[in-house]
Amino acid sequence: MEEYNDVAIVGVGQTEFGEHEEKTLVDLYNDAFRDALADAGVEEEDIEAIHYGNLGAAVTEGVSNLPAHIVDELGLDPMEAVRYEGACASSSVALVQAYKDVKAGYNDIVAVGGSEKLKSAGTEKGTEALATASREDRTFPEVFAQAAEHYSERYDIPMEELEEQMAHVSMKNHEYGAENPKAQFYGVMEDLDVEDVRDADTVADPLTLLDCCPMTDGGSAVILARGEVAEELTEDPVYITGTGLAAGGTMTEYGEDAIEALPRQAAAREAFEEAGIKAEDIDFAEVHDCFTIAEPIATEAIGFFDYGKGVEAAADGKTRIEGEIPVNPSGGLIGKGHPVGATGTGQVYSAFKTLRGEYDYLEDSDTAIVDTLGGDFGTVAEIILESDRDR
Amino acid sequence: MEEYNDVAIVGVGQTEFGEHEEKTLVDLYNDAFRDALADAGVEEEDIEAIHYGNLGAAVTEGVSNLPAHIVDELGLDPMEAVRYEGACASSSVALVQAYKDVKAGYNDIVAVGGSEKLKSAGTEKGTEALATASREDRTFPEVFAQAAEHYSERYDIPMEELEEQMAHVSMKNHEYGAENPKAQFYGVMEDLDVEDVRDADTVADPLTLLDCCPMTDGGSAVILARGEVAEELTEDPVYITGTGLAAGGTMTEYGEDAIEALPRQAAAREAFEEAGIKAEDIDFAEVHDCFTIAEPIATEAIGFFDYGKGVEAAADGKTRIEGEIPVNPSGGLIGKGHPVGATGTGQVYSAFKTLRGEYDYLEDSDTAIVDTLGGDFGTVAEIILESDRDR
Repeated sequence: MEEYNDVAIVGVGQTEFGEHEEKTLVDLYNDAFRDALADAGVEEEDIEAIHYGNLGAAVTEGVSNLPAHIVDELGLDPMEAVRYEGACASSSVALVQAYKDVKAGYNDIVAVGGSEKLKSAGTEKGTEALATASREDRTFPEVFAQAAEHYSERYDIPMEELEEQMAHVSMKNHEYGAENPKAQFYGVMEDLDVEDVRDADTVADPLTLLDCCPMTDGGSAVILARGEVAEELTEDPVYITGTGLAAGGTMTEYGEDAIEALPRQAAAREAFEEAGIKAEDIDFAEVHDCFTIAEPIATEAIGFFDYGKGVEAAADGKTRIEGEIPVNPSGGLIGKGHPVGATGTGQVYSAFKTLRGEYDYLEDSDTAIVDTLGGDFGTVAEIILESDRDR
Repeated sequence: MEEYNDVAIVGVGQTEFGEHEEKTLVDLYNDAFRDALADAGVEEEDIEAIHYGNLGAAVTEGVSNLPAHIVDELGLDPMEAVRYEGACASSSVALVQAYKDVKAGYNDIVAVGGSEKLKSAGTEKGTEALATASREDRTFPEVFAQAAEHYSERYDIPMEELEEQMAHVSMKNHEYGAENPKAQFYGVMEDLDVEDVRDADTVADPLTLLDCCPMTDGGSAVILARGEVAEELTEDPVYITGTGLAAGGTMTEYGEDAIEALPRQAAAREAFEEAGIKAEDIDFAEVHDCFTIAEPIATEAIGFFDYGKGVEAAADGKTRIEGEIPVNPSGGLIGKGHPVGATGTGQVYSAFKTLRGEYDYLEDSDTAIVDTLGGDFGTVAEIILESDRDR
């Protein structure tokens, strides 16, 4: 039994992240899905199951049971299709489960993805949908402002210094997002400085508007294939070599300890063990930078930096493309946008294209990690991707 | 590879179905979970993953990301925990995915379940949460009133005759629910007649209040174990020998054809094929009777009766405990209640206890099917259970 199958990504798709007033959640997923099919060179009929992630459908669009609607609108016969909700990590949770099904040999080719409409839902509905994912009755800027305060106290970094260091995360991710044609902030804000970030409107002290990712509409999709099938479909599959998923350890329950991200530690440990590699083997990372403070917290729990050293490392340029460990070369959630249900497989979209050498900024990378966080530190998925795994 | 593991249920838990004003969704799941652990004789720490189903949390309680909250409140370390949403089939969808993980050997012991609060959410919020699962902007009584009209037209049965035949489903399920100590209608309405059902208030013509399941709060949980582990834990495991899951084919898209339940045909075919048995091998069924008309539609698509003959069969007593194929001996959703996210694993709770001989009304049964429907015919899960499978 314990002989499982290899699993590879053979194609990816993504809508532009931004505002899609005229599109439904189903449209956004299906647009990304068709984009991914074309990229993979497979037909709709080849897809044996659809794994779909979304957070806020019931609030923003008044709908549930979306897999049935997705299958209907694609014109397909009834098929296996499942919705997952893990707050902002919804489509990464979907990917971990889809991966396990292919690894076990239940399916040869499946689709995974997600969609969300937050921008066009309006600020009130969008905020309401997001706030459901916080255990306490507060918004996410408030959650992460609290995280920044915990970080300052725990690691004895004066808040003014921390604010300036965090600004470098915003500057980097806006710079990279400005280069990404599918990003919400494509072509804008490519050259921010610390003053720009600090002088922007305060959202939840100490976080300004430029410390926060935007509200976004969008869809993304990924086609997974069993290793042998993938090798028939493409000359350059990207293998998923390890995944980890953990829930628990929210900020409500763990307070200050939550910023050392206990589920992330568990998920990363599991993913690295399965892949048989370590943090130092990773060439670049796409991590969950919903706020500037969130990115260094992620890089610490994954193991790139010691606890309390991640923000300083970012300010020192260590997470830039030319640095020690490039983090969010796609622009991340801050530069690219954060259409919650589409975010995880959107990160995979960027990592896959980078590993395939389709982007010129990181041509020689072959190993990446995708990290997605859901809620107030409560749900984390880690996915390790490798492009030239010897097999 | 293709050698998979056996999977068995080793314990089940359920809250009373009814009103739980003072309990949260997490409380209701965790109460049922602890009940299931005690039934299985295992500890919280033995559980390797939690698969949780819920429909309406964001609407009724303003929360999402519930797996993290569940793990926190159980006091467990961060662990694999996933939420599934498949409308009224949410926890059955969770069970199908959990089953696949154990079958593949990823886990030895996992928990599956769900919870929902519709009764204590109030009629407005409860109805809003449920209505999200209908593709069109209408309530579920309206969806199933339309289904009854389609049934009458398609099979040329005068509506007055159909109404009287449907009443027998209500009478039977209320009779059995009145005997079930965990049912919402325990001890009441044990002796309805056709006039009682027809003379009740009209909810959506032709459906009266007694054609409808009630609004319900509740939680349910099931412990699954890998076959070899199950055999160490208990002398009488109940094996899951086949599952099927399909989405698509909603009434919006398929109109009248939807009442022949295309996803249900696909899901049942898959489950029967995997189990290597046929509909005639089933000793009893727990099926999705959210409305009286829904039960015969289910029994037809599963294969117990020809299309257009299910309602007549019910009126003739063929689905009573002493009939050809007992359907919903637990009282079903109509007698027991329908706490949506808890319904699927609640059906499994009843089927498991019956197969173990804990209920005296069906002592010699050893093979059952559990059928759960989500949305306007769009998502269906089928689960086959066997108590004395030769192995």
